[in-house]
Amino acid sequence: MASDLEVTSNLAPLNASKLKITLTSTPKEHTPAESLKFGKTYSDHIIYATYDPVTGWSDPEIRPYGPIALDPAASGIQFCSNVFEGMKAYLGADGVPRLFRPELNMRRLERSAGRLALPPFDGDVVLQLIKRFVQVEKRWIPTLSGCSLYLRPTIMGTMPGFSVVPSDSATLVVIASPSGPYFAGEVKPVSLLAVSETVRAWPGGTGGHKVGGNYSPGFLPQKLAEKQGYSMVLWIFGEDKSVTEAGAMNFFVVLKRDDGDGLDLITPPLDGTILPGVTRNSCLALAVDPSFQEATGLKLHTHERKFTMQDILKWSNEQRLTEALCVGTAAILVSVDRIGYEGSDIHLPKCEGGLAPVGKALRSKILAIQEGREEFNGWSVSCD
Amino acid sequence: MASDLEVTSNLAPLNASKLKITLTSTPKEHTPAESLKFGKTYSDHIIYATYDPVTGWSDPEIRPYGPIALDPAASGIQFCSNVFEGMKAYLGADGVPRLFRPELNMRRLERSAGRLALPPFDGDVVLQLIKRFVQVEKRWIPTLSGCSLYLRPTIMGTMPGFSVVPSDSATLVVIASPSGPYFAGEVKPVSLLAVSETVRAWPGGTGGHKVGGNYSPGFLPQKLAEKQGYSMVLWIFGEDKSVTEAGAMNFFVVLKRDDGDGLDLITPPLDGTILPGVTRNSCLALAVDPSFQEATGLKLHTHERKFTMQDILKWSNEQRLTEALCVGTAAILVSVDRIGYEGSDIHLPKCEGGLAPVGKALRSKILAIQEGREEFNGWSVSCD
Repeated sequence: MASDLEVTSNLAPLNASKLKITLTSTPKEHTPAESLKFGKTYSDHIIYATYDPVTGWSDPEIRPYGPIALDPAASGIQFCSNVFEGMKAYLGADGVPRLFRPELNMRRLERSAGRLALPPFDGDVVLQLIKRFVQVEKRWIPTLSGCSLYLRPTIMGTMPGFSVVPSDSATLVVIASPSGPYFAGEVKPVSLLAVSETVRAWPGGTGGHKVGGNYSPGFLPQKLAEKQGYSMVLWIFGEDKSVTEAGAMNFFVVLKRDDGDGLDLITPPLDGTILPGVTRNSCLALAVDPSFQEATGLKLHTHERKFTMQDILKWSNEQRLTEALCVGTAAILVSVDRIGYEGSDIHLPKCEGGLAPVGKALRSKILAIQEGREEFNGWSVSCD
Repeated sequence: MASDLEVTSNLAPLNASKLKITLTSTPKEHTPAESLKFGKTYSDHIIYATYDPVTGWSDPEIRPYGPIALDPAASGIQFCSNVFEGMKAYLGADGVPRLFRPELNMRRLERSAGRLALPPFDGDVVLQLIKRFVQVEKRWIPTLSGCSLYLRPTIMGTMPGFSVVPSDSATLVVIASPSGPYFAGEVKPVSLLAVSETVRAWPGGTGGHKVGGNYSPGFLPQKLAEKQGYSMVLWIFGEDKSVTEAGAMNFFVVLKRDDGDGLDLITPPLDGTILPGVTRNSCLALAVDPSFQEATGLKLHTHERKFTMQDILKWSNEQRLTEALCVGTAAILVSVDRIGYEGSDIHLPKCEGGLAPVGKALRSKILAIQEGREEFNGWSVSCD
């Protein structure tokens, strides 16, 4: 008889070399890229693997897209032990499918799963599976600029039971969704409504992790903001009215510096309430890159520090607030044209073509890297 | 052509008179009541109904228990737009199955669903379905005292999509689980570890609603508390170290009064961070009921007000802290024997038989009402 310890060590790890591919016999028809919405169309297949507490990870599969069968008492349904990632695959003019800094998503997926005490796995193996998956689904990558194959890795707890304890079993699914822009129509600025009655995240909560339960509590505030004519919520936290995130995106402001030495690009720090976004990280890195500054003529200084609605009001009144930006994988980057706060609107300077200068430069550069038109620090990773 | 408005008004409401019952052809074998765990065994059937944004609620069904098919992109999986309730059915000596104050669960289910912008429904109709369901599953109600048929109504968002917007479709499931006590073995006190590094709920969050996403972030702190030898987490909030809830239960303390006029029963107020528990409400109501006080000889004064760990320390040092109690539907009521706080333990007075006097009196009375042995304010509701 094996001891408990030995049994534990015999748990199968997630193993990309054991991938089984079962292709659909009924491939779907393509939606023309022009009419693709965001996250509403799905490719022919998914990645699927399950974790069992006795045997470990099953051999992963690429299998036809379709409903998954879940016990109605599953932890993920009842207690929402679900974590996810958002990634995008692009097809370069060279025909190579590429991912953008996917290792950051994998590290975050590992951390998110750990936060909800989900079974362990190696994110690098998930990435190997995703690369193979993107190859298989290559025909689904839209080539129209602004479109991409959005990838959604999800891990959900599947243990049935009503005791409030960790799920000892789980299912990994990766969905591929050929997607148009997150905000439909031409590129245009978004409006934000500053909301402090409901809070997205708090110290000691899960705001710094990508857990599913962070998102649905934002549905109602989002709906109420839309009713008042705003695109999204700007999440304000605490008595000092700190600015945190916008909708499900990280938030930046751009300020003229007192010393005349260019611009400050400021975003709230990763204090546990802010999602460590891949696009956020990329904007911070690009903004201070000498080649980026030289090519764009933008002299930028980056800061990860707290700021408040009072700061925004003051900067706006001083005419130093030149841009406000929302960034995230789904939409990449959008400019803000106004922020509703305590009954009136703070207006940002008007911008040509829907994007303010710093936002436009960052977005263009990121998109060029993602689409494989420019190389930068190995951020764009081939799936071949 | 009907206008949008007319279409909206044609959405079918959830309708108990349209219930379709399909009984299983393969009834499960009973687990002996003595070996029932909590929430791990399920009856033969579930209640099942779906909401479609075009047609409204489907005809509800009682159908065999089994996996449900969900799109992997469903809102409930991805963004955790899931809410639930916990209820219990008991079988009286008179053979009548009874629910305990089920209308409170239904009102809370409606509020929870509204908080996550789920489709509307009438909780009274859900209750009609549950009563019929309990009749159908009557053979599954364990009659051993301390056991019951735990009921788990769940509503999950089912709209597929990756935009962070409300789910326009949903599935209602009600599961019945013949269950033993939440804490297995003989009745004994629980130990609590005061935790403030992780935070269960926050003003402006969802702590006052029964949404699934409130629970999985507690798995890891619970696991860490167990590693240190404690049964559950005592959730401490804010710089003043307010005491809020214990595990997934409401929390009370019992204090000797300064004026010698009996005891104070104190629980944190419903400020939005505290779940409005049915057992919490019942304890508050019973404690000041003249017939309860007369029968038990307990002179109790109830208070819904904030208190802190510093208060608990002080009350303990003054030897006024006679009991600490955790209450909730699953476990009803358990006494606390010690609270770990900042490296040492606050010990509660030892109690005979695992329950301190006030806790024992409240628990006995609630159980007597639940089991139909005593009548109180119509709290116990027949399913026949």
